[in-house]
Amino acid sequence: MSPQTQIPSPQKTPYPSRIIDKPQILKRLDPVVYGKDGPLTPEQSDFFSEKGYLFLPSLFSEKEAEIFLRELQRLSELPNVKGAPETILEPDSQEVRSIFYIHKTNKLLQSLSRECRILEVAMHLLGSPVYIHQSRINYKPGFNGKEFYWHSDFETWHMEDGMPRMRAVSCSITLTENNTFNGPLMVIPGSHQYYISCVGKTPENHYQSSLRKQDYGVPNHQSLKELVQKGGIISPTGPAGSVIFFDCNMMHGSNSNITPWPRSNVFFVYNSIENPLHEPFHGLTPRPEFIASRDFTPLQPENTG
Amino acid sequence: MSPQTQIPSPQKTPYPSRIIDKPQILKRLDPVVYGKDGPLTPEQSDFFSEKGYLFLPSLFSEKEAEIFLRELQRLSELPNVKGAPETILEPDSQEVRSIFYIHKTNKLLQSLSRECRILEVAMHLLGSPVYIHQSRINYKPGFNGKEFYWHSDFETWHMEDGMPRMRAVSCSITLTENNTFNGPLMVIPGSHQYYISCVGKTPENHYQSSLRKQDYGVPNHQSLKELVQKGGIISPTGPAGSVIFFDCNMMHGSNSNITPWPRSNVFFVYNSIENPLHEPFHGLTPRPEFIASRDFTPLQPENTG
Repeated sequence: MSPQTQIPSPQKTPYPSRIIDKPQILKRLDPVVYGKDGPLTPEQSDFFSEKGYLFLPSLFSEKEAEIFLRELQRLSELPNVKGAPETILEPDSQEVRSIFYIHKTNKLLQSLSRECRILEVAMHLLGSPVYIHQSRINYKPGFNGKEFYWHSDFETWHMEDGMPRMRAVSCSITLTENNTFNGPLMVIPGSHQYYISCVGKTPENHYQSSLRKQDYGVPNHQSLKELVQKGGIISPTGPAGSVIFFDCNMMHGSNSNITPWPRSNVFFVYNSIENPLHEPFHGLTPRPEFIASRDFTPLQPENTG
Repeated sequence: MSPQTQIPSPQKTPYPSRIIDKPQILKRLDPVVYGKDGPLTPEQSDFFSEKGYLFLPSLFSEKEAEIFLRELQRLSELPNVKGAPETILEPDSQEVRSIFYIHKTNKLLQSLSRECRILEVAMHLLGSPVYIHQSRINYKPGFNGKEFYWHSDFETWHMEDGMPRMRAVSCSITLTENNTFNGPLMVIPGSHQYYISCVGKTPENHYQSSLRKQDYGVPNHQSLKELVQKGGIISPTGPAGSVIFFDCNMMHGSNSNITPWPRSNVFFVYNSIENPLHEPFHGLTPRPEFIASRDFTPLQPENTG
């Protein structure tokens, strides 16, 4: 029986959520770093294992970042982009917030997703060939970039996409400077070691609203306080072309951005081919391919640098 | 004819706003530092004059800050406080956002408003005896503290309260740590030298909504870009008990706060007794006494330290 056809009931997962009345903090049962070989130094690997993230400043040159940023600009101005299902608009302003599935729809960004400087790090961390579970570009414009509340992606991917275990990693390539003022990604170091089981049920087609503003799968205040007391809060900041890897179960979020400085990035989620999706929990309809891909073909590293 | 009874038409003020179709950047015509004598060093005075703000870390002890914080807590739990006109609730959560007029309604905070460590700085900057134009306590709770968009207080005080000239200073006493994550005050250094004339008309009783979320008297994107290009953005951060003075015409705002850390403060606006309010512009009804006081009695410094 292939993993795809196993449909565990909520009782069977070690990471239940959205089924209980009281939130719970559970211990992570999975490794964090799966691989022994790859581009990371032992120190980098240990840091990721302990903290749950790794910041690689200027992994891409500012010139490379500029090329990708121009592509983002071009995409946002294409006719029909605002009406496409892959496009998410800002809740208030109707500006483009994100475009999903860009590793399939755009040659330049597909190539970036396979770039050895990032793909080999993902393969190192996950200890296997990998495929892309989700890709998107985030515009986070200046002046009215909205906050994104604390969440663990794995909670959503586990519940709504049927990702079995914690063996995926997010990779954000910054295309504009990230500074302390323009609503940078905030992470709670060490939070990837705990699974916050959330209360509440998930409505059908939840993704249509949750990608703008999440109402379900939201961690409670007390759990967040405990995680922050343990690990504090960190924002990796640096020039355009920097890369942030963070574990799929990392608690993260971002404040709003009223500065004139946009905070655009390209975002790839790599999942191990040994961790393919099964059916979602709670009988939910699987989310569309452009949000949770079921094309488990492993990626081959390319060298574009 | 006393200044209170002069009712200039919008054409007569050198700082017109909310009357034109296109935003304009005008030069400040008033001094910034009016006084020669007082507790500030020449370096501090020059810094304030050039940048428009002054940060005095730990001017109050953490123990003093703790006493004031407890008083804020007590006030927020009083019966009827949520229904009082002086109380402003968060737009979404109905939690207490601010309580106004606390220098008149609360003995402890009245005493703080006259504390020589801050009052004498205000008198130095404004070069005269001063009175309190506005006072409030801000709770800015953790998890869902909302952003406050860029604005110059003077634009509002000039238009809606009839404050004649730029000769007032804001004083924020932090009662919790201000760090880069919990939505600290952001200022644009040097922006106090420019007056952004805003477009749009002001509806009657605008204050009832503007204290929650401002829709009029909002500076335009291009003007903000220019100010930030000139001066950048700064967030004074430090422990509880720190004090931030900033000029009445400083462009300032704050991002949201999703961290568990609240960012509470006490806020006094000192105005020179030589700059008393006249009638508002555009025939607006004066805002209530608890938002824009017309008790111009000068304050006497007290020593509580």
